[in-house]
Amino acid sequence: MQTPQRERALVPFAELHGLLASIFERHGASPEVAAILADNCASVQRDGAESHGTFRIPGYLATLASGWVDAKAVPVVTDAAPGYVSVDAMNGFAQPALAAARALVTAKARANGIALLAIHNSHHFSALWPDVEPFARDGLVALAFVNSMACVVPHGGQHALFGTNPIAFAAPRAGADPLVFDLATSAMAHGDVQIAAREGQSLPEGVGVDRAGKPTRTPAAVLDGGALCPFGGHKGSALSMMVEILAAALTGGNFSFEFNWSGHPGAQTPRTGQLLIVIDPARQAGNGFAARIETLVREMRAAGQERQPGERRYLQRAASERDGVPIAATELEGLRRLAAPAGTA
Amino acid sequence: MQTPQRERALVPFAELHGLLASIFERHGASPEVAAILADNCASVQRDGAESHGTFRIPGYLATLASGWVDAKAVPVVTDAAPGYVSVDAMNGFAQPALAAARALVTAKARANGIALLAIHNSHHFSALWPDVEPFARDGLVALAFVNSMACVVPHGGQHALFGTNPIAFAAPRAGADPLVFDLATSAMAHGDVQIAAREGQSLPEGVGVDRAGKPTRTPAAVLDGGALCPFGGHKGSALSMMVEILAAALTGGNFSFEFNWSGHPGAQTPRTGQLLIVIDPARQAGNGFAARIETLVREMRAAGQERQPGERRYLQRAASERDGVPIAATELEGLRRLAAPAGTA
Repeated sequence: MQTPQRERALVPFAELHGLLASIFERHGASPEVAAILADNCASVQRDGAESHGTFRIPGYLATLASGWVDAKAVPVVTDAAPGYVSVDAMNGFAQPALAAARALVTAKARANGIALLAIHNSHHFSALWPDVEPFARDGLVALAFVNSMACVVPHGGQHALFGTNPIAFAAPRAGADPLVFDLATSAMAHGDVQIAAREGQSLPEGVGVDRAGKPTRTPAAVLDGGALCPFGGHKGSALSMMVEILAAALTGGNFSFEFNWSGHPGAQTPRTGQLLIVIDPARQAGNGFAARIETLVREMRAAGQERQPGERRYLQRAASERDGVPIAATELEGLRRLAAPAGTA
Repeated sequence: MQTPQRERALVPFAELHGLLASIFERHGASPEVAAILADNCASVQRDGAESHGTFRIPGYLATLASGWVDAKAVPVVTDAAPGYVSVDAMNGFAQPALAAARALVTAKARANGIALLAIHNSHHFSALWPDVEPFARDGLVALAFVNSMACVVPHGGQHALFGTNPIAFAAPRAGADPLVFDLATSAMAHGDVQIAAREGQSLPEGVGVDRAGKPTRTPAAVLDGGALCPFGGHKGSALSMMVEILAAALTGGNFSFEFNWSGHPGAQTPRTGQLLIVIDPARQAGNGFAARIETLVREMRAAGQERQPGERRYLQRAASERDGVPIAATELEGLRRLAAPAGTA
């Protein structure tokens, strides 16, 4: 027997986008920043990645109210070298910083074969795949790294130091949606630990440690001064360290353990950095890139990997474009109230 | 009580290097290729990574005898774009191809901020960290990807498709040896499964599948038509797919499931490709890269991560430089016989 689902509304993408843009503007964002955040948040919701969609609006608003982030920031783009773009997000969100530099880094990747985009002084509060997928739609291969806030213990260590530190990757396909993955280097999402705590479930082995650094399967012990483990033991830990080096040390951003938001109660967005590497596969004559990717996809299917990275999102995207973006009815009402002019709600 | 160790010899690095170079030359390598392979193999043995050191000599020799690899190959370097170097290894080993292009890709990384080195038609039969460490010693950050031979099942699949597909990373430190890691994206090394089979041990959960694609803890079932799993479930599988795309599709090399060595009995080296990304952290003014890495290392120590990536190798390297390179006495005798002119052994 299925448990009854919360009542769902289906809202056209354009309407959701408009609602979200109004909300961001009403809570202090410039029109430019509001439009970019609305597009990001509505797209994530459209694609079914609900943990990073409209579910995040209360976190955005609490952060904006705290004064921790500048939602009117105008990113400063520096052309640092023929293959290197640096962006100071000016304590704003990472997505407007990326938008400000996207054309330049794309042009550099096409001219040089590879280019790097280093963003610092930035806040990333969404999924990472929306940052890389557009490069693949332009025929480019993209890798992205972003660090976050200390909640992951290095392998063999006792206290949290790394963020959940995701790595995202996108590669174009011939006549099909790109291959895209976005994976946290933590063993589990923090939200899933909270759900396990609420539902009285044990965690799988190897997911977390308690405040003494000892392995635990009790969600409350992880949440109460403990930490998440990296995925895959020492290997995931090494990758998480690499994300700190690339997204923070190299870009000039904060490490996940560095920023201090204690003066801003309600702040939830990590003030760190982000690095993107963009490659033009067409610069190497004769690699037949698009056809080769189709060979790989065909063989992955034949080996029994039924769903390719990104595929579930594309299926939900198509359904959302046909039927409207699914959202809990009560949540949609809440968004409408937040977007309404003062006094009319 | 300690079990008695096999009798160990300690051989000066230069002597081991000379022995190995003689062996490679006597078995068909050009002097240039022999010197590079000898340096690689002796360095790996010196650093205590024995599974990729002199232990591999029989595999090299079987492969050379099979005619599968051209140990006299002269790599062809193409300056494909301002940030893109492509090398056709001409069916030779990957290390000479990298050596032929190292100066050019280093210069491009310094000039552009980032550069890419794509090697194809190459055989990689060693550890990956020796390929990246020298870039970090030159003050650069390096990432490397190499695919190998089908022995890893995609997550959720039934048969082997990916190689063990390692990822290596190196970053410079101020006044200390670089941070370097080299991790296979498989859950276990193939050699460790063979050891478990020999010793009658069970494998940990999640390491392998049998020939029907079903999870198994029986080493023989993995070895007999089964396959290894990726490390870390679907995340490691996605990373392994990324290595196939970067190291094979992008470079113009073979995927791990493609090459056919059936006409060359004894061949053990995968004929695939390799990709390196090299970044110059000094191109972004103000990131204070070297000092920032020291901050990260200090905090990783404080969090309880006692040994930093690469540290165990550096400790063994220092011991080997002081005392000589450790090697089983019988193995050293074998190398001396292989290196001796015909008729004198």
